[in-house]
Amino acid sequence: MSDILKALGQVLEQRKNAAAEDSYVASLHHKGLNKILEKVGEEAVEVVIAAKDAKNSGDNENLIYETADLWFHSLVMLSHLGESPEAVLDELARRFDLSGLVEKANRQQ
Amino acid sequence: MSDILKALGQVLEQRKNAAAEDSYVASLHHKGLNKILEKVGEEAVEVVIAAKDAKNSGDNENLIYETADLWFHSLVMLSHLGESPEAVLDELARRFDLSGLVEKANRQQ
Amino acid sequence: MSDILKALGQVLEQRKNAAAEDSYVASLHHKGLNKILEKVGEEAVEVVIAAKDAKNSGDNENLIYETADLWFHSLVMLSHLGESPEAVLDELARRFDLSGLVEKANRQQ
Amino acid sequence: MSDILKALGQVLEQRKNAAAEDSYVASLHHKGLNKILEKVGEEAVEVVIAAKDAKNSGDNENLIYETADLWFHSLVMLSHLGESPEAVLDELARRFDLSGLVEKANRQQ
Repeated sequence: MSDILKALGQVLEQRKNAAAEDSYVASLHHKGLNKILEKVGEEAVEVVIAAKDAKNSGDNENLIYETADLWFHSLVMLSHLGESPEAVLDELARRFDLSGLVEKANRQQ
Repeated sequence: MSDILKALGQVLEQRKNAAAEDSYVASLHHKGLNKILEKVGEEAVEVVIAAKDAKNSGDNENLIYETADLWFHSLVMLSHLGESPEAVLDELARRFDLSGLVEKANRQQ
Repeated sequence: MSDILKALGQVLEQRKNAAAEDSYVASLHHKGLNKILEKVGEEAVEVVIAAKDAKNSGDNENLIYETADLWFHSLVMLSHLGESPEAVLDELARRFDLSGLVEKANRQQ
Repeated sequence: MSDILKALGQVLEQRKNAAAEDSYVASLHHKGLNKILEKVGEEAVEVVIAAKDAKNSGDNENLIYETADLWFHSLVMLSHLGESPEAVLDELARRFDLSGLVEKANRQQ
């Protein structure tokens, strides 16, 4: 699974400068930070609702879809402000002291 | 960067069953889904506020920190409902047709 | 200002049963609770963004507009679940012991 | 019910300048706009969760409590930025053309 976020980060950078009518990502950048942040907030609420429904139904399909939407829009936000996904992942690795675990996982690939 | 989310997913699974007083993650699972979802919502709003401040100040440090908090709590939510981070990353890979890019990136490692 | 929320509550009850194509309120009820809650969440995030912008610009016009949107959609939510605005206002009055103040204000009308 | 929001607005203005250790409202103003907005966002998510639970259980008690929390914190936000509840209520009255209804309701008091 590993490089999905890295690859997605690269795709998002490429689309940042596409024509707004050709790309949803470009249209978000064109509309500006407030629009991107509205989407981050909307998707967070949709995740909360989907999680409550998943708990009741036992079906996680929509939860996965909405969480993907949330992560995607937070990546667009990072890109809009000049950050890469790596900065956030490094913060998580630092916080949980994951360096040894990641090295071990890479050796096992 | 690649396996950070995978490694974090494993750490979160291990901590899920720790004593609540020894682990923040275990204490969240013990308090239940509503508490975990409140945290997801809180962190999303803190991301929005941090992004507005980052735009004004040009300093992304707090934005990275708050986005890490948002992703972390959404991983705890997935774990609570029996999902792994891979399910969300696979959805993103499918949506953006990243399989070729990821394969290429892995060859370059 | 006094009876605005009460009057609005009555208008919302009337529109609850209108044809979905004739009334935004009816269309929200028709789409169901999840859609109404998504709107409550969206409007809350728009309030947060508008407040950050108001702080920077000194102009509260959009903040007032977005706060009206938030209160309006929370009233639709209460109506959808069979509650009136009075229940929430009574809770606020109880919490802040406003009964004496309200009585005094009513005498001064 | 009428003047509850007006009375609450007056109480909130008085408490704005109290000592932070004597008043929750004063402590929020002292911590600043970001803290107040975090609370608005938190309470909105708690309303969404409470509404999902109310729909399942048929019990609206917690929903009323959380909606009161949301309205209360949005009033503190308005106060922090120099606005009164009246500005929002006037916007709602204008939008729904409530002037005739409110006048009629006042005559019936």
